[in-house]
Amino acid sequence: MIKAGIVGGAGYTAGELIRILCGHTEVELKYVQSASHLGEKISKVHKDLLYLELSFTDVDLQDIDILFLCMGHGESTDFVKNTKIPASVRIIDLGNDFRLQDNTEGFIYGLPELSRSSLIGSRRIANPGCFATAIELGLLPLAARNELPKELTVFGVTGATGAGQKPTEDTHFSNRNNNLSNYKVFTHQHLREINETLHKAGDQSMKQLDEKFPFDLAFVPVRGCHARGILINTVIRTSKSKTELVDIYKSYYQEHPFVVVSDEPLFMKQVVNTNYCFIHICNDGNRILITSVIDNLLKGASGQAVQNMNLMFGIAETTGLRLKANYF
Amino acid sequence: MIKAGIVGGAGYTAGELIRILCGHTEVELKYVQSASHLGEKISKVHKDLLYLELSFTDVDLQDIDILFLCMGHGESTDFVKNTKIPASVRIIDLGNDFRLQDNTEGFIYGLPELSRSSLIGSRRIANPGCFATAIELGLLPLAARNELPKELTVFGVTGATGAGQKPTEDTHFSNRNNNLSNYKVFTHQHLREINETLHKAGDQSMKQLDEKFPFDLAFVPVRGCHARGILINTVIRTSKSKTELVDIYKSYYQEHPFVVVSDEPLFMKQVVNTNYCFIHICNDGNRILITSVIDNLLKGASGQAVQNMNLMFGIAETTGLRLKANYF
Amino acid sequence: MIKAGIVGGAGYTAGELIRILCGHTEVELKYVQSASHLGEKISKVHKDLLYLELSFTDVDLQDIDILFLCMGHGESTDFVKNTKIPASVRIIDLGNDFRLQDNTEGFIYGLPELSRSSLIGSRRIANPGCFATAIELGLLPLAARNELPKELTVFGVTGATGAGQKPTEDTHFSNRNNNLSNYKVFTHQHLREINETLHKAGDQSMKQLDEKFPFDLAFVPVRGCHARGILINTVIRTSKSKTELVDIYKSYYQEHPFVVVSDEPLFMKQVVNTNYCFIHICNDGNRILITSVIDNLLKGASGQAVQNMNLMFGIAETTGLRLKANYF
Amino acid sequence: MIKAGIVGGAGYTAGELIRILCGHTEVELKYVQSASHLGEKISKVHKDLLYLELSFTDVDLQDIDILFLCMGHGESTDFVKNTKIPASVRIIDLGNDFRLQDNTEGFIYGLPELSRSSLIGSRRIANPGCFATAIELGLLPLAARNELPKELTVFGVTGATGAGQKPTEDTHFSNRNNNLSNYKVFTHQHLREINETLHKAGDQSMKQLDEKFPFDLAFVPVRGCHARGILINTVIRTSKSKTELVDIYKSYYQEHPFVVVSDEPLFMKQVVNTNYCFIHICNDGNRILITSVIDNLLKGASGQAVQNMNLMFGIAETTGLRLKANYF
Repeated sequence: MIKAGIVGGAGYTAGELIRILCGHTEVELKYVQSASHLGEKISKVHKDLLYLELSFTDVDLQDIDILFLCMGHGESTDFVKNTKIPASVRIIDLGNDFRLQDNTEGFIYGLPELSRSSLIGSRRIANPGCFATAIELGLLPLAARNELPKELTVFGVTGATGAGQKPTEDTHFSNRNNNLSNYKVFTHQHLREINETLHKAGDQSMKQLDEKFPFDLAFVPVRGCHARGILINTVIRTSKSKTELVDIYKSYYQEHPFVVVSDEPLFMKQVVNTNYCFIHICNDGNRILITSVIDNLLKGASGQAVQNMNLMFGIAETTGLRLKANYF
Repeated sequence: MIKAGIVGGAGYTAGELIRILCGHTEVELKYVQSASHLGEKISKVHKDLLYLELSFTDVDLQDIDILFLCMGHGESTDFVKNTKIPASVRIIDLGNDFRLQDNTEGFIYGLPELSRSSLIGSRRIANPGCFATAIELGLLPLAARNELPKELTVFGVTGATGAGQKPTEDTHFSNRNNNLSNYKVFTHQHLREINETLHKAGDQSMKQLDEKFPFDLAFVPVRGCHARGILINTVIRTSKSKTELVDIYKSYYQEHPFVVVSDEPLFMKQVVNTNYCFIHICNDGNRILITSVIDNLLKGASGQAVQNMNLMFGIAETTGLRLKANYF
Repeated sequence: MIKAGIVGGAGYTAGELIRILCGHTEVELKYVQSASHLGEKISKVHKDLLYLELSFTDVDLQDIDILFLCMGHGESTDFVKNTKIPASVRIIDLGNDFRLQDNTEGFIYGLPELSRSSLIGSRRIANPGCFATAIELGLLPLAARNELPKELTVFGVTGATGAGQKPTEDTHFSNRNNNLSNYKVFTHQHLREINETLHKAGDQSMKQLDEKFPFDLAFVPVRGCHARGILINTVIRTSKSKTELVDIYKSYYQEHPFVVVSDEPLFMKQVVNTNYCFIHICNDGNRILITSVIDNLLKGASGQAVQNMNLMFGIAETTGLRLKANYF
Repeated sequence: MIKAGIVGGAGYTAGELIRILCGHTEVELKYVQSASHLGEKISKVHKDLLYLELSFTDVDLQDIDILFLCMGHGESTDFVKNTKIPASVRIIDLGNDFRLQDNTEGFIYGLPELSRSSLIGSRRIANPGCFATAIELGLLPLAARNELPKELTVFGVTGATGAGQKPTEDTHFSNRNNNLSNYKVFTHQHLREINETLHKAGDQSMKQLDEKFPFDLAFVPVRGCHARGILINTVIRTSKSKTELVDIYKSYYQEHPFVVVSDEPLFMKQVVNTNYCFIHICNDGNRILITSVIDNLLKGASGQAVQNMNLMFGIAETTGLRLKANYF
């Protein structure tokens, strides 16, 4: 059994991680740390888990094989730098601290569909961002062939869980319900992560990636009036036919269990509460629309973290991740 | 023209009041006070009002005919006690400070369907609570005949706007969306107001109303996953036939423009964004269900406040209140 | 491995059943029948299942151990009467055809928390209705002691999935969203099933249950603006203290893995996408509120069907049913 | 008083039209025609209007000044061709039959912000489509200067009311709630109308507009999980600065009461239940995002129809259209 600990256990991603690990046949969840809820039962925060006897504890680095960091962005760096972590403890960070290539702590970017072979057996993985995952999976097959046009226009709609647990004006039900609004237009913090990934996919040397992004990616993130799920619509203009594109995509993803290229148009709820990414391509002449959908908390966070853990420990990639879709 | 001012202008009820008064042909809105937003344009807070040039100001008690108090519960008392309010200025308080008969500041309880004649020309009105309004309107016709059974079981579902503007765990979209939960079961703060009103309706002397409520009203408030609107379902057991009841209700409300007794079953959105209360009665033998629906921010707050203002100044009760329902 | 077939495979309950059985370690899903979709891939209808290779087929009664009937209400009777079903094939009917004691086809009412011992090893089970399940679980512990008062007032709110797959005016998003409405007030079709169950629970002879229901159960069903989940609020008046009641409930359910008596107030999403029923009791003097929440499609339908199947075949009751809550 | 009739009175746009006209001081609503509901009270269909005594009737072309056609797309042509309409009766068609320049019945395209002067006093107006209105208003100021780039990428999200009254799989609450999906990608029926309008705005001769659209407009319509409202996000790449653009837009719209260029980012509910279009521009280098929001049933249909009627009859453009926003 893989002995696992979670740091920062009171947030959304930690909650989802606990829910998955409770059903994972190869993992024993040793503890869930939370400073703000120390000593309280886990079900006090994650209230579906009434039947779980565990309480929040402190961190204990002995006697565990893997540590999941579910802390606020920026806090993982502090933790990793200031904690004496035994060499035997592997780490998966769900924050955005170590996602770029030039991180100094030896984290590998954990997108299995880009670099599964380097993730197998690895010791430190930076789990990708939610928008980044959905956008990258929609573009990887072309990027890997260096056939992605430089100009990309991307619209993404995300649910309120993407904004985290803290109640704010933007997540107030009175404001969010039946509403839509843009945010961080053209400036979302995942842009560099995405550019780097698309660049790497084409075997481009990182040396060539200076401050100037290789791709002119106009990304418009939208707050949707739903709780979980991301819909990405990317428009490119290319002379490739739809058939050609579908073949490229199906061939790229055929060995990847969590990405499915659908011949039919998609809707977001097909993947909500699962670790899947579904992709659909349609076109009109040289205008191409690539649509990808994920659950932001699963394939976009905790589900992918478990997928990465499975790879780290050399067990089947799908273990614990055959989750029943909520669907409705 | 009636010259009006609003105190506490940044909250939900003030916003609705501004929206109504902007279209009220007999009112000139002189100012909207807000300490926290002093000097800012009103549209900074109430963002639909982009075309309105007004900014938030301080209170000015000269040169106005009526003052609406839209302050937090408890703050109206401070304001009324510590402010030198000219005798010529009438007041409508939307908080819960002066709703009970024993208030010492001379406020009359402003439910037009109970006591319209005393509200006409009056100078200080305490605007009823939202749940109180919906429950009372559902029971007044029987209470007025002293034919209301003592045992009442009331279920009420309210929207997120009922919880006010401050973001909390309960109004976080991730929690509220697609969810339902109870709160303040059997202990809601409107219970005394409701009991007093039902008691008064039957011409019962207030002296008889001691601490023990006349009615055994088991009220279960529920948080719904919608933004605005209240649905009240009251179950009583009585030997009266449905026909008899419907006659009593229609007769009671025939001169009241904002209450309609519907022969058809209701849904809540029939009245959302209007000042109406719709009521429906159905039965099975001696079990009677009385259903009433209102918009918590309009008939349950700012709409009723304007209705009360109309009565104060002796103008038509419906002026400014023929609002287009949102309906969908 | 238990070899299972599903009849009526295109509806909501069949979809949920397929999702559960795909992750059930002791079941092999042999086929899913659908007349209207014969030959089509299952993912054409249940669109999350893109990765499933199965197509809809005809019924085949050889070589299966259990048949789930997910047909329209009334159709199961036709099927059972007119089909030659081998004695070796067990049946669970998810419709309402055989739920009453006087059914002539030998079906037992499948509420494990009422009569688990008779369900173990049984051959024909009528799966309870969704509202019935939630109401009965909220009242069983008192009914079993013959201490349930005769007068019960029950409010239940259900999601749009409760109305099934067929698009109607009532399930049109424009009407349902941000709305609430009553339906089948005092006359819901589950009332007899509920009355019979509460009667049986107290070891009352069925002979005594004539046309007159033993309980005066005033049930008001409400259409909520959510997709899945039922919230039941039952008000009774009794002299029992809250502590006494909680003890009775916890003791009754202690050996039942899917019912949890919560010391904290509940919300509906705690159980959505799980097979759990959570119950909470609160009071004010002699007024008691019993709240119970379930997922109408799982504990209220397909999840309970699998729980019943597990009992039929003598395997652990929770097999395949440790489902990750959707939670948000 | 303008005497008005409505044909096709049972649909969504007719309902909104009735609601507006009930509060319009210059209009007397003479009748509402509906073949399917002939003789029924209007409140049987538009259920907020319980207090309205009118019933659905047949068409009567005498004694009215204006006829609103709210029929299914295609039916207006039949009606206009096969009905003897007196010359004195003006017509506004809310369908899509006469929106293109080459219609043979003499209808003018009714976008007041494009061609108010020709609408004043006109006799036949084709009311623009909802998506068309929102997209065109977002682009008109640039199109009018012939400075709109040829390549446009447009994302639009619309509510369930956009799909009309008929219950379908796409508008089933269980499917639509908490969901997002694309439809009619690159092929929406408003594309030709939009292209023609942008072309005309720049004083381009219609002769030059052959089958090939002047603009390469990649339009991706998305079904949102809300009831009413459209959010349009258009990305263009241009060397114009943001300040320059904002000036152009503000100057273009300064005399148009229903279009407001906002300095602050927008959200859709700012305009829901009003006749406004709000526009916001933001940029990052040469990438420009133009956001426009409208209520699809008002500025996108019935509100704009009344605005057009006001222009036809030479009364103030805003009469009857100062509607209270629903806001929440």
